[in-house]
Amino acid sequence: MPGSTFGTLFRITTWGESHGKGIGVVIDGCPAGLPLKAQDIQEYLNRRKPGQSRYTTQRSEPDRVEILSGVFEDRTTGTPISLLVYNKDQHSKDYSEIASCYRPGHADYTFDAKYGFRDYRGGGRSSGRETIGRVAGGAVAARLLSALGISFCTYTRAIGPVQIQNFSREEIFNNKLYMPDSEAAEKASEYLESCMAAKNSAGGIIECVIHGTPAGLGEPVFDKLDASLAKAVMSIGAVKGVEIGDGFQVAASTGLTDNDGFHIRPDGIIEKTSNHAGGILGGISDGSDIILRAAIKPTPSIASEQQTVSRAGEEITLSIKGRHDPVIVPRAVVVVEAMAALTLADALLMGSVSKLENLYKIWK
Amino acid sequence: MPGSTFGTLFRITTWGESHGKGIGVVIDGCPAGLPLKAQDIQEYLNRRKPGQSRYTTQRSEPDRVEILSGVFEDRTTGTPISLLVYNKDQHSKDYSEIASCYRPGHADYTFDAKYGFRDYRGGGRSSGRETIGRVAGGAVAARLLSALGISFCTYTRAIGPVQIQNFSREEIFNNKLYMPDSEAAEKASEYLESCMAAKNSAGGIIECVIHGTPAGLGEPVFDKLDASLAKAVMSIGAVKGVEIGDGFQVAASTGLTDNDGFHIRPDGIIEKTSNHAGGILGGISDGSDIILRAAIKPTPSIASEQQTVSRAGEEITLSIKGRHDPVIVPRAVVVVEAMAALTLADALLMGSVSKLENLYKIWK
Amino acid sequence: MPGSTFGTLFRITTWGESHGKGIGVVIDGCPAGLPLKAQDIQEYLNRRKPGQSRYTTQRSEPDRVEILSGVFEDRTTGTPISLLVYNKDQHSKDYSEIASCYRPGHADYTFDAKYGFRDYRGGGRSSGRETIGRVAGGAVAARLLSALGISFCTYTRAIGPVQIQNFSREEIFNNKLYMPDSEAAEKASEYLESCMAAKNSAGGIIECVIHGTPAGLGEPVFDKLDASLAKAVMSIGAVKGVEIGDGFQVAASTGLTDNDGFHIRPDGIIEKTSNHAGGILGGISDGSDIILRAAIKPTPSIASEQQTVSRAGEEITLSIKGRHDPVIVPRAVVVVEAMAALTLADALLMGSVSKLENLYKIWK
Amino acid sequence: MPGSTFGTLFRITTWGESHGKGIGVVIDGCPAGLPLKAQDIQEYLNRRKPGQSRYTTQRSEPDRVEILSGVFEDRTTGTPISLLVYNKDQHSKDYSEIASCYRPGHADYTFDAKYGFRDYRGGGRSSGRETIGRVAGGAVAARLLSALGISFCTYTRAIGPVQIQNFSREEIFNNKLYMPDSEAAEKASEYLESCMAAKNSAGGIIECVIHGTPAGLGEPVFDKLDASLAKAVMSIGAVKGVEIGDGFQVAASTGLTDNDGFHIRPDGIIEKTSNHAGGILGGISDGSDIILRAAIKPTPSIASEQQTVSRAGEEITLSIKGRHDPVIVPRAVVVVEAMAALTLADALLMGSVSKLENLYKIWK
Repeated sequence: MPGSTFGTLFRITTWGESHGKGIGVVIDGCPAGLPLKAQDIQEYLNRRKPGQSRYTTQRSEPDRVEILSGVFEDRTTGTPISLLVYNKDQHSKDYSEIASCYRPGHADYTFDAKYGFRDYRGGGRSSGRETIGRVAGGAVAARLLSALGISFCTYTRAIGPVQIQNFSREEIFNNKLYMPDSEAAEKASEYLESCMAAKNSAGGIIECVIHGTPAGLGEPVFDKLDASLAKAVMSIGAVKGVEIGDGFQVAASTGLTDNDGFHIRPDGIIEKTSNHAGGILGGISDGSDIILRAAIKPTPSIASEQQTVSRAGEEITLSIKGRHDPVIVPRAVVVVEAMAALTLADALLMGSVSKLENLYKIWK
Repeated sequence: MPGSTFGTLFRITTWGESHGKGIGVVIDGCPAGLPLKAQDIQEYLNRRKPGQSRYTTQRSEPDRVEILSGVFEDRTTGTPISLLVYNKDQHSKDYSEIASCYRPGHADYTFDAKYGFRDYRGGGRSSGRETIGRVAGGAVAARLLSALGISFCTYTRAIGPVQIQNFSREEIFNNKLYMPDSEAAEKASEYLESCMAAKNSAGGIIECVIHGTPAGLGEPVFDKLDASLAKAVMSIGAVKGVEIGDGFQVAASTGLTDNDGFHIRPDGIIEKTSNHAGGILGGISDGSDIILRAAIKPTPSIASEQQTVSRAGEEITLSIKGRHDPVIVPRAVVVVEAMAALTLADALLMGSVSKLENLYKIWK
Repeated sequence: MPGSTFGTLFRITTWGESHGKGIGVVIDGCPAGLPLKAQDIQEYLNRRKPGQSRYTTQRSEPDRVEILSGVFEDRTTGTPISLLVYNKDQHSKDYSEIASCYRPGHADYTFDAKYGFRDYRGGGRSSGRETIGRVAGGAVAARLLSALGISFCTYTRAIGPVQIQNFSREEIFNNKLYMPDSEAAEKASEYLESCMAAKNSAGGIIECVIHGTPAGLGEPVFDKLDASLAKAVMSIGAVKGVEIGDGFQVAASTGLTDNDGFHIRPDGIIEKTSNHAGGILGGISDGSDIILRAAIKPTPSIASEQQTVSRAGEEITLSIKGRHDPVIVPRAVVVVEAMAALTLADALLMGSVSKLENLYKIWK
Repeated sequence: MPGSTFGTLFRITTWGESHGKGIGVVIDGCPAGLPLKAQDIQEYLNRRKPGQSRYTTQRSEPDRVEILSGVFEDRTTGTPISLLVYNKDQHSKDYSEIASCYRPGHADYTFDAKYGFRDYRGGGRSSGRETIGRVAGGAVAARLLSALGISFCTYTRAIGPVQIQNFSREEIFNNKLYMPDSEAAEKASEYLESCMAAKNSAGGIIECVIHGTPAGLGEPVFDKLDASLAKAVMSIGAVKGVEIGDGFQVAASTGLTDNDGFHIRPDGIIEKTSNHAGGILGGISDGSDIILRAAIKPTPSIASEQQTVSRAGEEITLSIKGRHDPVIVPRAVVVVEAMAALTLADALLMGSVSKLENLYKIWK
């Protein structure tokens, strides 16, 4: 029944409800000696903070993180790192009406079915605010990976029907939608305006590219690196599909096209000649960039009228009030990156003991 | 480092290499009192057995399963069920040349990177024969779920560019490709012939529909039911993408279209009015059919020449001999079903203790 | 590397250092619908609070617990329960000298060996304050068990050479040492006075009796109920031995004496005629009282001079200042009870799905 | 519910019943590149084989182990190692009468309570033959530890009231009781003769000393090395108590006596001046010998009449026939060693990633 823990060696446990006292995460298993400050985590949290643009909820939350344990003199000690963000701007009254009915596209009905009742205030545990714990934990994972030369580039690939046509890494942080293509960002903004005018909402696609991963991460069979990434990313509230490398396009491809050959670089390193596999072969990283994509569904909270059922068992219509994002995608970019970082950090620690030779390096 | 265990309460551990003595699985946590015979498992294994058609490897393996423990007088005892399939038709000589190089699209390179060396005979642990353990374990999971009214319908949705246009449940077992559309099956056969003639291979899409799941399965946050299904299915060797419900189509959809309303059936049961969500809301089953799809890459072993590198560090060209499937999809259908069944069985056991009320039913 | 999580279905994760900002625990997997208030937890914490008698540290900590999540309208929701106790009375200066050397009997040396450095303030993570998270989590476990008719009686069986001779349940809470024998408590007090006068410290034995456990809890083989209890209790800082039932006395006993017969009670219930086994047969509860004992070592912090080594690599003598308990036993009583409760709660949830019949009760 | 898996990174899963087809173990997570032959495992199994002396069951089992996977060219490959021992000499008829009643001191009653029925043949899963899987797995763990300089010395410390008075390592394998004191062994033999004559049985104490463990193994808080050892050893069928170092004697000791000082060896290594702690401080190995003891109960199967209850609900008397050991201790010596080796191997792998510095050694 406990589902709030992720990872085996680098492991996080999150807690907190949308309108409870706060949201937090305990990170257990982070190796000792990693330089870490609250600011490292705050920068990640700021990327998912509400109120960054008119396309995100107007709930006003500073989302300031506190480190409560596990760090001494700005270095991790190897013991659990407890991070806490207090909730500040809960408007519980906005949600009073939804206490009594099941919002389409939300977890109200399934929480009731599972638990018999629910903390309905702002979606309780199934609110998007739950991702604060993921992002704070992911920030620490990314910090660890960065110390070992692994870096992330994550962005919005599509919003509604608008897909990126160009790629400029610098552009990603230049627009509120985190798109690496300024023209696409502009078109996407127009599309979002039309959705809002129609009391409707939009979905999209997020892409994450991981650079610098050594070959050899991931375990054969059930804990393949791509399988773990798929779980990590699919566990984000609104994700309905996950792909690695060429993803669903492989279905119509052929072996001749889809296989990546190998060659030897001038410096003697073995490398693939292409990257259809998205950096993972047989569930184990091959040293190329790891490429994954997630499909994000449209925000389920919309102001249009929808048909539903009340807890009391009556058919009703519902128009959702409150402060909601017309699109989740931009704020979910850092959540996808956080989940990928958590997965990689765990795989890296697990992979450290794959051969006797590695044990000799440490213990002899 | 251990990656051969799947599940928490209903848990399987698999072992075995393509050309070792055999392949097996230990199922731990199956509740006591479930009727079970070897034949129940054999029927599942027969669906993935080689040699069923000219589109599958001609390796001749009877794949007969033996129950070594955990079953007494044809009922499970609650203790580990050990299942064993001996390998019979190993032609290790066919693989002798690939011992010395890295096959494109295979795990040869990554196994070497991770472990320093590998059992190269027939792909060793990364061979498709590894899935025997999954299917045998999945057969037991399916047997348990069936006792609780949960059933599966899994089939080939596409092979290469050929997609199904009609759906006939009866048709699925009428053609060697497990397609629910006889015309599509015929076109797909033609497509496969052309691939074979070109020393090439094909991919496809598998769809799995799960009927009868009660609302309330899956855990919030990291162990969402869709997340666990995604990991389960992505952990199958050739899978590069996983979708739930509308999947990647949600990206271009809107809230008005994608949300499923609720209504009340004449018998008083609450039900959704559509099923874009694929039976899962907030990571918890909602009582509708669960729908998932997996993208399967083309068989990487092809007879055409490919560019690669030898273990000795030379660039070479390679044409793969041996007995290989020109398409993996048909045999992978039951593997997808098995992984879905294992995930559901585990979620069902986990979900049994979600509320105090359930504990009263058992312990008071 | 992460060692701060205990349990599979009823699972706690603790965090916090002696002189950090606070100590906390996240309880994940508590079934929904359990009545719970902060006061239920506070009562447990008060039993381990410092300053209760002259035999405990004079550090002044109110140890007030806050519930940050997982409880709504005084009932658990099924989501993680985060509990926090802020540290108030840190006298970090008292510990400045021990930053530079290894205290005998403490974890200073081993933490340095493992992590390369340590948070030395008050023992950091290896301080007895770490047990606050255990006790807070155990209080919730005990609340759950109590709802199912399972209760605990835990007390001091011996302090130094003074063992109890009589048993009065009422007496346990009448003396500061939690002994069920007032005369023994008096003698133990005298013994402790003599230890303190000699700048020395004392150990003892704690006994825990669990009443009302249904037969059938615990898993065969590695997760036997007694094995899990042994781990739970041995994981408490100062414990050096654990026994179940007759414990070490079985070594010199015989089968005829040690075996417990069975008979049938007038009400038709099968019962054992004695309880040498301490309520557990083959690792599974048999319905009798579960009886366990833990040996607690003398407080390692003593004011007498001891030989040790500095971090700089010099042999030195050390007399430990600061506020320390001359005996840990009385405050550890509730810690043992908490760990036993956590173990039982987890075993109870795990045991709910042991047979198909139980699944029918919930799902059909 | 699954209890047949032990360990996190070095993980074994066992299966098999006393009178089923066989007993086996799957070892997952053993690093690649370790030299391993069936003979390494067979030597361990021979130490627990029945029929070694007149004090062990006369069941005649060769207990020959087969390696089915995970080893290639006499080295481990990093993939699961499946080991199988077929049962040969099942006399199921001997046990037909006990199918219908609950043997005192056995798990018959508790298995029925938990699972509703049981495989009664020879005790099924709760038979001592279950330990074959432990010993086979432990042999591989010991092989790994040996490659890193860690060795074991395990022996019988007491049988019934007869305790060892001297210690000679060579003597251990010179007598059938595995006692390091030939005089004690002789007296113990006499004691066992008297037990057998009286249709009675004996218990004893096993001691295990682990040499060469580096400082730094074990995780703080719940996964302390002593806690994991306690669980490992208490999970062996007949164990009722576990001690580390001075064990239960610490209760009556004082801080001045029990604390181990530190000094610096001539070669500059920091070392303790005594070893009351048994090699573990704060749950982490301190580099001294690890010392643990287990109390083993008398064999519950005795030929004397005992009072019990039938499954049909009648009070009856029972005299157990069949082939039983009058004392379990000598054959359990290697089982204790195996469990200790499994625990250490897992702790060693876990401890490899405790600090950033270690990751640099492997990944940079």
